[in-house]
Amino acid sequence: MTTTTRRWVLAERPSGMPKLSDFRLEEAPLREPKDGEFVVRLTHHSLDAGIRPSLSQDTYMAAVQIGKPVPSFGAGIVEASSHPGFPEGTRVAGNLGWASHVVANEKLVERLDPEIYRDDIPMSASIGVLGVSGLTAYFGLLRVGRLKDGDTVLVSTVGGPVGAAASQIARIKGHKVVGIAGSPAKVAYARDRLRLDACIDYRAEPSLRAAIARELPDGADLYFDNVGAETLDAAILNLRLGGRIAVSGQTAEYNAESPRGIKATTRFITHRLKMEGFVVYDFMRDWPAARAELAGWIRSGDLVYDEHMVDGLEHSAETFAGLYARDQVGRVLIRVS
Amino acid sequence: MTTTTRRWVLAERPSGMPKLSDFRLEEAPLREPKDGEFVVRLTHHSLDAGIRPSLSQDTYMAAVQIGKPVPSFGAGIVEASSHPGFPEGTRVAGNLGWASHVVANEKLVERLDPEIYRDDIPMSASIGVLGVSGLTAYFGLLRVGRLKDGDTVLVSTVGGPVGAAASQIARIKGHKVVGIAGSPAKVAYARDRLRLDACIDYRAEPSLRAAIARELPDGADLYFDNVGAETLDAAILNLRLGGRIAVSGQTAEYNAESPRGIKATTRFITHRLKMEGFVVYDFMRDWPAARAELAGWIRSGDLVYDEHMVDGLEHSAETFAGLYARDQVGRVLIRVS
Repeated sequence: MTTTTRRWVLAERPSGMPKLSDFRLEEAPLREPKDGEFVVRLTHHSLDAGIRPSLSQDTYMAAVQIGKPVPSFGAGIVEASSHPGFPEGTRVAGNLGWASHVVANEKLVERLDPEIYRDDIPMSASIGVLGVSGLTAYFGLLRVGRLKDGDTVLVSTVGGPVGAAASQIARIKGHKVVGIAGSPAKVAYARDRLRLDACIDYRAEPSLRAAIARELPDGADLYFDNVGAETLDAAILNLRLGGRIAVSGQTAEYNAESPRGIKATTRFITHRLKMEGFVVYDFMRDWPAARAELAGWIRSGDLVYDEHMVDGLEHSAETFAGLYARDQVGRVLIRVS
Repeated sequence: MTTTTRRWVLAERPSGMPKLSDFRLEEAPLREPKDGEFVVRLTHHSLDAGIRPSLSQDTYMAAVQIGKPVPSFGAGIVEASSHPGFPEGTRVAGNLGWASHVVANEKLVERLDPEIYRDDIPMSASIGVLGVSGLTAYFGLLRVGRLKDGDTVLVSTVGGPVGAAASQIARIKGHKVVGIAGSPAKVAYARDRLRLDACIDYRAEPSLRAAIARELPDGADLYFDNVGAETLDAAILNLRLGGRIAVSGQTAEYNAESPRGIKATTRFITHRLKMEGFVVYDFMRDWPAARAELAGWIRSGDLVYDEHMVDGLEHSAETFAGLYARDQVGRVLIRVS
């Protein structure tokens, strides 16, 4: 068994866009697993724009401390175990960070359900469409957004894994869905692969508000927000009476030196709007059932997902730093081993 | 019976603060009531900051047209009637505008319940604490805000009729309540007459956010918003996990040339906040029950209210224009006759 791990730690708090030098790859000793513990060798870890705020300040989780591992979801295989329920070879996923090996326990990871992860669904999906991103879409749309019959749905960043899943779930449930994305390639992806009714390239439109009104002349009932700021305002101005906003992410705010927020707050009164933020961990108890439903949609071909693999743990930080800029559809993952 | 009415109409759309010349007092013919109609002689009309947006643009109601009567609640007495259910002498209240006489029907007004309006509760209360302002407080706090045991409550503009009622209802229900107001006189009023736990003079504080944190070190569960903008941001930054915002009014936005909105939107995610706007008319079916409960609290002395009467319809416009500036507690009413 290996006695060391390679892992990325936070070197400095990012200000504005994260950069390579905010992170440091280090080799650290890996202790023996105590009773109830086991060593996980990671096969993949995810890169989530959503961790950005916690690199700079306390959020719903405490801020990551300087010198401490960068959090992220990872999938892996148990290599050495002092826990009878997690024998060698068990496939697991959990918050393992950007690392090659982690000493874990049953609170940190969950076993991957062999019924779900068969030949047609790889274990990397456990940290993607069947992990936090797909579950965020699922609970944001159905539980927070309370999607109901007849709703028209607007979803931002449909080129990313959360938006792609959210917009498809709305489509699967029979709703008219309009996406928002930031490049012609993403718009084509949304139309051709995600099969949305329409997708708006916000960079190509003189007015996002007008573009939404063009695609949804009667307005939207539900907006799934991954962006915040101007995009959220444009959506608010197109919500119908009683419209809802499920706030899943605010990527436009995370790297801003000072927050931009929203202007159209009087609409909350005139249009009886409701805006609610959420974190997918609030729904952990219901993850297994949601995951089973998502897996069913994947197997039936209704729900598609795309993984973009970057090989090698040494590329984690540069890939993360490039996340915001890249014209990439689907989910970016690091293949660790 | 009089054959004319005096009434205020919109002369120009206000830009920024409303001014006297935005309105015009005219004498107009009053037609005979047709079958099912009756003439109401107004005794009082209200002056509501909340009508401000509809003077400039379409909101939840269509914008007031130039040359058309200014909307407001009024109370009055039926003078001539072609409706057997509303005989002469019937006391009514409804959206009658700034006027001396109005031809009305049963859709426009409701009968004042003689059980409620006895000697100790004057009919002017029907357009105040038992009208839109008290009902807005009631439904905003209990229905939209879903006030529940153990909540700490923050209420803005407690010197005004909506905030005064909302903060007192929270106090009556046993909650810790902190108010926000804009002068030492209003703070004294909130403490001594409304009997709130504390009240913050936002003009006297270098940081409203810090002042709220001082009065509510563990944060607030529910914020009843009458103001929007910076005040709403300061409240958001003091909301606890799962905190709710009932958006009743946004007086800080109504006269702004361009909206200010809120900045602290990422808090919606990190703190799982929920913000919902509402209009009291959405709850009309439940007004009678709410009014009975409010009247009970008035009779028991738990709920106090204050009316500031201005005599004469000729003062409606100048009083409305001065609403935003005056250091006045309670509700401002015009005594028409």
